[in-house]
Amino acid sequence: EQALASSGAVGVGVDQELISAVPSHNPTFVSRNFTDAEVKYCQSQPSPSSSFAARWAGKEAVFKSMGVKSQGAAAAMKDIEILADESGAPVVHLHGDAQVAAKSRGISKVLVSLSHSETTAIAFAQAS
Amino acid sequence: EQALASSGAVGVGVDQELISAVPSHNPTFVSRNFTDAEVKYCQSQPSPSSSFAARWAGKEAVFKSMGVKSQGAAAAMKDIEILADESGAPVVHLHGDAQVAAKSRGISKVLVSLSHSETTAIAFAQAS
Amino acid sequence: EQALASSGAVGVGVDQELISAVPSHNPTFVSRNFTDAEVKYCQSQPSPSSSFAARWAGKEAVFKSMGVKSQGAAAAMKDIEILADESGAPVVHLHGDAQVAAKSRGISKVLVSLSHSETTAIAFAQAS
Repeated sequence: EQALASSGAVGVGVDQELISAVPSHNPTFVSRNFTDAEVKYCQSQPSPSSSFAARWAGKEAVFKSMGVKSQGAAAAMKDIEILADESGAPVVHLHGDAQVAAKSRGISKVLVSLSHSETTAIAFAQAS
Repeated sequence: EQALASSGAVGVGVDQELISAVPSHNPTFVSRNFTDAEVKYCQSQPSPSSSFAARWAGKEAVFKSMGVKSQGAAAAMKDIEILADESGAPVVHLHGDAQVAAKSRGISKVLVSLSHSETTAIAFAQAS
Repeated sequence: EQALASSGAVGVGVDQELISAVPSHNPTFVSRNFTDAEVKYCQSQPSPSSSFAARWAGKEAVFKSMGVKSQGAAAAMKDIEILADESGAPVVHLHGDAQVAAKSRGISKVLVSLSHSETTAIAFAQAS
């Protein structure tokens, strides 16, 4: 595992979501899948629904990059927290089962980038 | 070449395809560009046309990441085989001229990720 | 910084642009944001507006991968030059403030890949 980590990327992940298909106006959906800090950030943005959709795509991309299925018992969407650093760039924080899964796969860093148009959010992640 | 490979990614590739533009119902197109194992996998998926389009985008992205043109004599689409591991994650297998091209460029690993919406498939690849 | 660079990717960036939203027929926009070599290349392509939009998305993706904001004084779009190598693959050249920013972050290489459909250009970049 250490050899893998030091030799570069362990996995990559890409995801796209229609912004209209991410139910960010549903409080149950939001509180189940986003941390308080993520909710606060998205609601402060010019288009909260776009920000929620971009983060949703980001979480899916992170799961793919780690080789973990997002559905089922493996790990919850909330375990992948995507916040913004002081320049606004997205930063991944792993919690709970996602953190355990990363450790077991020798993953020490997950990079992510997000983009949204008027209709579609896309995300790319790289685990190393 | 060895120096390049050990210092991380040699190349990256991104591609997008309209699912309706990939003629996955044409048996000649399918047999010329997909291996038997890929065909079997795609036909077992909920939406075979989406799976064929995602793999098609994946093959293009892999070619780009390797710095190889997909058209012409350089390598055939079938030389890039994208299967699924036991968790469903896509895994790249190189054959024939693509394998030769990878070796000559010091590429030992190609990672790929696929995503499709109702209309569009996108793929990202990284060669190292 | 050297440790970061040798341990793999420093950052990744993804961007998408509607081709119709990139004003590539506006000479002021073009001369402010693209180098002479980029203009010459894009105008030689089958669809210049698609090529300009893909490069525009590429420049945004490169900025994101470097952790630099593209707006404001930090760096100009023209400082990120994306040309094509002899095989047609996009190659990033950094100039001016972008070059300074890369150096200060220990970034020695930025890879980029571009793709466009009839309507949308997407780009992915990786800084290491």
